[in-house]
Amino acid sequence: MLKIALAQIKVIPGRPDLNAQKMLQFIERAKAEQADLILFPEMSIPGYLLGDTWEQPAFLRDCEAWGETIAQAADTICILFGNVAIDWQKNADDGRVRKYNAFFAAQNGKFVADGSFPYPFRIKTLQPNYREFDDDRHFYSLRKLAQELSTPVDELLQPICVNIGGRTLKIGALLCEDGWSDDYSVKPAATLSRRTPLDLLVNLSSSPFTLGKNDKRHRVFSRQARDAGVPLIYVNNVGIQNNGKTVYTFDGCSTVYGRNGDTLLHCPPFEEQLAYLFFEELQLAQATSAVRVPDDRGIDSIYSCLRYGIESFLEQTGLAKMVIGVSGGIDSAVAAALYAHILKPANVLLVNMPSQYNSPTTINLAHQLAENLGCRYVEIPIGESVDLTVRQIAAAGLSLTAFMRENVQARDRSSRILAAAAAAFGGAFTCNANKSEMTVGYCTLYGDESGCLAALADLWKHQVYALGRWLNEQVYARPVIPAEVFSIVPSAELSPEQDVDAGKGDPLVYPYHDYLFRSFVERWQRATPEDLLSWYREGTVEKNLGCEPGLVARVFPTAADFIADLERWWRLYTGMGVAKRIQAPPVLAVSRRAFGFDHREAQNPVHFTQRYLQLKQQLLSPEK
Amino acid sequence: MLKIALAQIKVIPGRPDLNAQKMLQFIERAKAEQADLILFPEMSIPGYLLGDTWEQPAFLRDCEAWGETIAQAADTICILFGNVAIDWQKNADDGRVRKYNAFFAAQNGKFVADGSFPYPFRIKTLQPNYREFDDDRHFYSLRKLAQELSTPVDELLQPICVNIGGRTLKIGALLCEDGWSDDYSVKPAATLSRRTPLDLLVNLSSSPFTLGKNDKRHRVFSRQARDAGVPLIYVNNVGIQNNGKTVYTFDGCSTVYGRNGDTLLHCPPFEEQLAYLFFEELQLAQATSAVRVPDDRGIDSIYSCLRYGIESFLEQTGLAKMVIGVSGGIDSAVAAALYAHILKPANVLLVNMPSQYNSPTTINLAHQLAENLGCRYVEIPIGESVDLTVRQIAAAGLSLTAFMRENVQARDRSSRILAAAAAAFGGAFTCNANKSEMTVGYCTLYGDESGCLAALADLWKHQVYALGRWLNEQVYARPVIPAEVFSIVPSAELSPEQDVDAGKGDPLVYPYHDYLFRSFVERWQRATPEDLLSWYREGTVEKNLGCEPGLVARVFPTAADFIADLERWWRLYTGMGVAKRIQAPPVLAVSRRAFGFDHREAQNPVHFTQRYLQLKQQLLSPEK
Repeated sequence: MLKIALAQIKVIPGRPDLNAQKMLQFIERAKAEQADLILFPEMSIPGYLLGDTWEQPAFLRDCEAWGETIAQAADTICILFGNVAIDWQKNADDGRVRKYNAFFAAQNGKFVADGSFPYPFRIKTLQPNYREFDDDRHFYSLRKLAQELSTPVDELLQPICVNIGGRTLKIGALLCEDGWSDDYSVKPAATLSRRTPLDLLVNLSSSPFTLGKNDKRHRVFSRQARDAGVPLIYVNNVGIQNNGKTVYTFDGCSTVYGRNGDTLLHCPPFEEQLAYLFFEELQLAQATSAVRVPDDRGIDSIYSCLRYGIESFLEQTGLAKMVIGVSGGIDSAVAAALYAHILKPANVLLVNMPSQYNSPTTINLAHQLAENLGCRYVEIPIGESVDLTVRQIAAAGLSLTAFMRENVQARDRSSRILAAAAAAFGGAFTCNANKSEMTVGYCTLYGDESGCLAALADLWKHQVYALGRWLNEQVYARPVIPAEVFSIVPSAELSPEQDVDAGKGDPLVYPYHDYLFRSFVERWQRATPEDLLSWYREGTVEKNLGCEPGLVARVFPTAADFIADLERWWRLYTGMGVAKRIQAPPVLAVSRRAFGFDHREAQNPVHFTQRYLQLKQQLLSPEK
Repeated sequence: MLKIALAQIKVIPGRPDLNAQKMLQFIERAKAEQADLILFPEMSIPGYLLGDTWEQPAFLRDCEAWGETIAQAADTICILFGNVAIDWQKNADDGRVRKYNAFFAAQNGKFVADGSFPYPFRIKTLQPNYREFDDDRHFYSLRKLAQELSTPVDELLQPICVNIGGRTLKIGALLCEDGWSDDYSVKPAATLSRRTPLDLLVNLSSSPFTLGKNDKRHRVFSRQARDAGVPLIYVNNVGIQNNGKTVYTFDGCSTVYGRNGDTLLHCPPFEEQLAYLFFEELQLAQATSAVRVPDDRGIDSIYSCLRYGIESFLEQTGLAKMVIGVSGGIDSAVAAALYAHILKPANVLLVNMPSQYNSPTTINLAHQLAENLGCRYVEIPIGESVDLTVRQIAAAGLSLTAFMRENVQARDRSSRILAAAAAAFGGAFTCNANKSEMTVGYCTLYGDESGCLAALADLWKHQVYALGRWLNEQVYARPVIPAEVFSIVPSAELSPEQDVDAGKGDPLVYPYHDYLFRSFVERWQRATPEDLLSWYREGTVEKNLGCEPGLVARVFPTAADFIADLERWWRLYTGMGVAKRIQAPPVLAVSRRAFGFDHREAQNPVHFTQRYLQLKQQLLSPEK
């Protein structure tokens, strides 16, 4: 029997030394279990999201050296792993040394090289350049190599052959995106299996978590195994990686698909695992009973991602204590409940910072929340400092309007109090902004849009509420977030116009605007005011946005109201919202489009298309 | 005679309506001058740096419609211009509709289509994916199309043929990077001119300013024209474009190269221009006398770029007034002199915000600067607020160390005073950070690392001094920045350890650290501690860094000192420096590598390579 080990390791980006040592440990464990073959994820030595660290030749040499060390460990075991491969003799398009995102196989202490392939490794064929991915910036793809060699790509899609116990195993080597070929003109898995009878398809991945992505992967990869008639093993890493503005969790969820497409093995999300299986079992026409894979589209998955992401971020940045400004509203309450669970209540300091506009209702809710969680709680009022600022600005011959004083309050809370309290407490402070606010910049720079991590900023307001309920019901199994936090009107409480006790709050109608903003940000084909007006004219706004039927007519009595609202928020989304996001904290990604590096944007003037202006004119002058 | 018009227009990113209207005006002017042919830059309709606006189908339709409008204006004139071209029937690799970065020729009211090329336009072949460029994210290159069609790229490199006055003009159509083919396996200009006898090479560009880039372009493009024996016209836009974190100026500098490589025409930097030339003159073997092109590597170019960049940024964001915190140091003095010149002194408010640590020396210098510039000046002390913060944090049972109080001061200045003063004054406030500080995060988040634009953050400290001297000598022709500002020690004045009157200041030895940091950031092959230690051992540090000979021995008595300093700043550059830059303001780019989107980075753990650790051990234990 041929025993295969799947090493779902935690990869630490930019630390080849630690990753290689982790790999050596897993190799030792697998050897002790008499495994014949061990599989590690894509880029398991360097990590994947490293920014321009790829431009440091010394770093590349280091990764190469650690790769050699791994190869030397391949004595009684064969090792497949991902690493950067460097051709020091050739240039990439940017004039730097050429780097490949590569798939290595090592056996008998050295890398497996075959006859006709130009290197002792295989090369990623399909390189993603959407969302958070920048593969073409750093790596030379097999497609480019084929063009340079004046060879069809298909010719270069050759299996890796390893010899185990006297038999030759032909492995179709895929790296991550190679398995997602639907939109590409090249189809690596299909081509590999068409050209040679394969024994196994292996997809080494470094694939960030996105809500619902595993669900899709099971469909795509299962079909791929079935179409090829070859078992497929998918190995993904865990850990977190980031590109500065956006932090990604990697969920692992390594999976084995049988030749008929059944799921035969499934590693748990967000934890390291060394799983074993026998090659012979995979070969059976009707493989052993299929396993069920968890659904990854619900609030439980969001919670797992956030919990793991926050925990890992704190660990990686060395933060063990956190200060959270708690207003009595839902966002800060959810943040407090999350961090208190992750760090233990004693390491979380909750700070309420009332001004004259904060109602006793919300102050009491904040206090009650702290008691429920068992966190240290302090009240630090901002009135004296805000008054001082107003006086000092007046003394300089200038004056602050009521609106400007709202921002003064917000900045006083975060930049003056929370930042100082965090330093004194020995940690950092959180940004509690949600995605709805962040989309349109309904928040203050250096105020509530500051902090070390915006852990909730990829959740729409309704998802924050759902997460709050989940925390109460499933995580704490008691209402740590008081019921009234869910029922009061969401409000910034920065002026008499935002009096929660009078039911006055945010200008956002979340059941509508959450979905409108989502269409701007998350739709693969981004919606714009032109699309919205087309849908409005057709009466299909709710259907296209996925919000409650009848909502549009209820919220907007006339077309003019609908249009005024649309333009107001579009202007903010593409205007001040961008300016504020440029200086916003890192966002923890959950959705298919998180702010930051996943959603690239420029601080450009607002634009309405010609077609939009025509539709608007038609709607506002219906007689025409 | 065949008259050609070069339209060096200002392109407004994301505003196809305004750009198309500008193009129509230039077309009318050229027609009035009996021009036969007019050339516009790459992506002259949509703009180039738009982030993911490219993912909005409505925006693409709008650009397409404006392109049609331009084509219809091609009656008595032939028009060459850049625009996005969309193949609505085909997918790109990301599953979205396929977009090309395209070169259009329009004549007789429609686009010129030739026999065998699959589209009525030409497609960019070489797409840059380094520095600020993301072409592969958005556009399908000619290389990919060739691969999809199983055709050699060379076959698709076909000239555009237009008919003017009965004669056919064969034009080699290049888009920006196509002219910078040295590091690519495909060479568009050489291939085009080898395959067909051409009359003209035209390179439509949207090429951001980088210090010294024009100097290189003249060498590369002049050689290209000479090698092909064909005149080459380079048309570039002016204006500014950005990708959020980094703002780029576009300098125009459109140039005509004769068939022998001489420069025959050169448009001025940073202004719109409609220049004319006659095709017949270009054809002469010895063309009319060559023009001299300005050197673009000096402080005068830096000044032009900053002046134009700031002016354009303020115009585009609608800012007419600016508040600047002035400490009496060089950075804020240079910022004040720049903004006062651009906005007029009455629109600039200078604010000095002393604490107990600010010397009368620097306060007086700030005051004198304001008087010299004629700007409004106020002094707003921060002592009272800082004391209040310290008291409030103590009342919460926490305490602030001396170091924490330094940051409290910095945040109080920017987030409390400058932000409020800016709102009341009717504008924004500047970030005066320089590149040396920003590299290692020697600045405070929500403090001096905040503001609407970091205009000096791509200048090393020595460049800030040079710019200050340039402003005094060339721009103002009088010492608006007082002489003592140049001579006092650079200091943050946040503690008794930073007493300028005692000659105590920053921990940075700028004549060395400016150059060390530049090697981390700007070298094409990035330097790391491993490289530095190798050079140290060889005695070639100064030579490799480009700093003053003998400096290393003077600053660092022992290898241990050199290493401790190196590790200290490397840790900060790859650690807290990254965390702070994530939330830093947009940086105005000058160098070949500005912070922000040009220098992509992740908040990852610090790393030292194996080779570094070996070298360190050898240097610290020389007996071995």
